Amino acid sequence: MYDPSPHLKHAGPFAADERAAVYRAIFTRRDVRSEFTQRPVEAPVLQRLLTAAHHAPSVGFMQPWNFVVIRNPGVKAEVQQAFDTANAEAVKMFPDNRQPLYSSLKLQGITDAPVNLCITCDRARGGEVVLGRTHNRDMDLYSTVCAVQNLWLAARSEGVGVGWVSIFNDADLRHILRLPETVVPVAYLCLGYVDALYEAPELEIKGWRQRLAIEDLVFQDRWPSAADLNVG
Amino acid sequence: MYDPSPHLKHAGPFAADERAAVYRAIFTRRDVRSEFTQRPVEAPVLQRLLTAAHHAPSVGFMQPWNFVVIRNPGVKAEVQQAFDTANAEAVKMFPDNRQPLYSSLKLQGITDAPVNLCITCDRARGGEVVLGRTHNRDMDLYSTVCAVQNLWLAARSEGVGVGWVSIFNDADLRHILRLPETVVPVAYLCLGYVDALYEAPELEIKGWRQRLAIEDLVFQDRWPSAADLNVG
Repeated sequence: MYDPSPHLKHAGPFAADERAAVYRAIFTRRDVRSEFTQRPVEAPVLQRLLTAAHHAPSVGFMQPWNFVVIRNPGVKAEVQQAFDTANAEAVKMFPDNRQPLYSSLKLQGITDAPVNLCITCDRARGGEVVLGRTHNRDMDLYSTVCAVQNLWLAARSEGVGVGWVSIFNDADLRHILRLPETVVPVAYLCLGYVDALYEAPELEIKGWRQRLAIEDLVFQDRWPSAADLNVG
Repeated sequence: MYDPSPHLKHAGPFAADERAAVYRAIFTRRDVRSEFTQRPVEAPVLQRLLTAAHHAPSVGFMQPWNFVVIRNPGVKAEVQQAFDTANAEAVKMFPDNRQPLYSSLKLQGITDAPVNLCITCDRARGGEVVLGRTHNRDMDLYSTVCAVQNLWLAARSEGVGVGWVSIFNDADLRHILRLPETVVPVAYLCLGYVDALYEAPELEIKGWRQRLAIEDLVFQDRWPSAADLNVG
């Protein structure tokens, strides 16, 4: 093949077993709340996970992320308190008949997990005008989520479970972690080794919601009209 | 190990070669604009990629995504026009001394790529109150980005390159794809087989921006004070 740049390298499909490993990470990854073991996450393993996150795609190569690694029990306790406050608000938002099931679900492992990790997005990094963010101001937040998912899949391959905790009042997390004004806490993650994972998403197993059929989610060329959807 | 649920399955670390495959996907994934070949993306391969996306984590198991698969040249031409309009606006936002480099960069492969794919987020799916979205209304958008990154890594393992095009006026894309009011076009992707990829991000190779040192991005327990940052 003609190679027009010394920086372009041959890149075909992976071997079948490599490809299977990538899909294995994708299909067996779970949101973990209760299965964390107390085995410490070694520094080199955590470093590999953070490096995987740092190699996510980012708009304009902005790399807007930071990684706040939390092991301090005092900080975790403050975060736990912030979750408890927000979750007590959350349960009341659901219809009466859903509240008992909601309350029975464990939705975080903040103090169980050996490591907590807040992945943030610095919206001011790279200046006011960022290539690719000119027409969608949220592309930097999306880049940061790509970093979360890279880390999550790498963690699965390392035997490390990850849980994303999203039930916080933003101001509480900002205050506890002392985040500057321009920095958004995109994901608060709990990390730790696991010996077991659910074979399907926990919310599916526990009857909260079922998996949608993929056939119903894929459209050709444009969003179908209401009439097409009724026929299909 | 005591197994408290029939749905919990043993889940340790992957074998070394499987783990290496996951990291290979993460570290060799690129945002592709120019390297698409005309080899068609077979339906079973596309199906595997969409299934990988559909197995992303989603807040409250909401699965807010849809997948609009675009092969129609007429639709692609409309999207190309929308990009051209937005990109002409974008270049003027940069300082004079950056405009020549900006203009020299190819930022999309809309008509080159055999398949375009818009991954959307239906913000109304699952009703007004969604578990885990009670305190951060954007968690459904973040879930959708997790689906993008799953697909991107699976595609790398299949030899399929992916480019994320973000320079659009939102209204144009909505109009062309006929998206309902509640549906947000989160990612417009170009997909096609590639024979070669850049060995580092294209924007780095072409001198737009450099990779940040990861040591500067990792903090312990809380965001450091300005004084700490100066010392470190």
